Amino acid sequence: MSRLDSAIRRLQAQRACLDWAVAGIAGQPGPVLELGLGNGRTYDHLRQRLPGRQIFVFERQVAAHPDCVPDAAHLLLGDFRDTLPGALARTGGGAVFAHCDIGSGDPALTAELAAFVGPALAPLLAAGAVVAADQALDIAGCTAVALPDGVAPGRYHLYRKDAE
Amino acid sequence: MSRLDSAIRRLQAQRACLDWAVAGIAGQPGPVLELGLGNGRTYDHLRQRLPGRQIFVFERQVAAHPDCVPDAAHLLLGDFRDTLPGALARTGGGAVFAHCDIGSGDPALTAELAAFVGPALAPLLAAGAVVAADQALDIAGCTAVALPDGVAPGRYHLYRKDAE
Repeated sequence: MSRLDSAIRRLQAQRACLDWAVAGIAGQPGPVLELGLGNGRTYDHLRQRLPGRQIFVFERQVAAHPDCVPDAAHLLLGDFRDTLPGALARTGGGAVFAHCDIGSGDPALTAELAAFVGPALAPLLAAGAVVAADQALDIAGCTAVALPDGVAPGRYHLYRKDAE
Repeated sequence: MSRLDSAIRRLQAQRACLDWAVAGIAGQPGPVLELGLGNGRTYDHLRQRLPGRQIFVFERQVAAHPDCVPDAAHLLLGDFRDTLPGALARTGGGAVFAHCDIGSGDPALTAELAAFVGPALAPLLAAGAVVAADQALDIAGCTAVALPDGVAPGRYHLYRKDAE
């Protein structure tokens, strides 16, 4: 499989997981969290699929296409270690969906970040919330969920927070 | 259509056009040209689909994954305006396939580059050569070819050089 094949499969898996989550939260009020804005591609996808839904974006340094940057009220700028712990004050309540696209080219840094994000995310989620992530996460109170058809195991990760 | 949808369609179109060209040059000896290395994704695809084929890469500044950088003998480093005119000395003969992924975020610069690349490419191609490009190109002696099934018009461009 070439890097081109791999990129296509990764984006397809990402979209399948996002669309699964979008369908899963229909009718459930609450904000959405996007951890990692990157080039803004998945943020653009979510805001199109979730019109009217508040989406809070966490990003260390914005490098997205200018069209894909949220307004200041929905952008938590800085290291996840600084922005996640107090985020409930900004979001105003538990999120019904969190998308985490946090991997970088550095496997050690990525693993370190994933180890922080899992526990830090748990208190920001509403009961029954879903999580889609490019990395395996250990989120207290969350259980792994089967991936949509066509998404190879390990290519993306889905979790659901237990009802309280 | 979101930017995620659009990215998936663009990569699928790119792959469909590359694979069409790969099939089309089977059995025809001659080098391949890759204009624009970028992250190395399509170079990786071509070298996997074309084992043993010489692939010459033209790139202003290498920023690809280290695994996807050709050896010095197959890398023509510099502005296309400097590297294309004398490239036949390096390739040793007309190419049977050229892939041009030359677009950037700047539409004016991209148009200017495409206007240079089309004419500059013509003398580097063997009779019957195929060209796949992310931009419409005006290449002397080349005719536009119908896109593979599933590739929307304008998303990619295919040409074939007339037999001499």
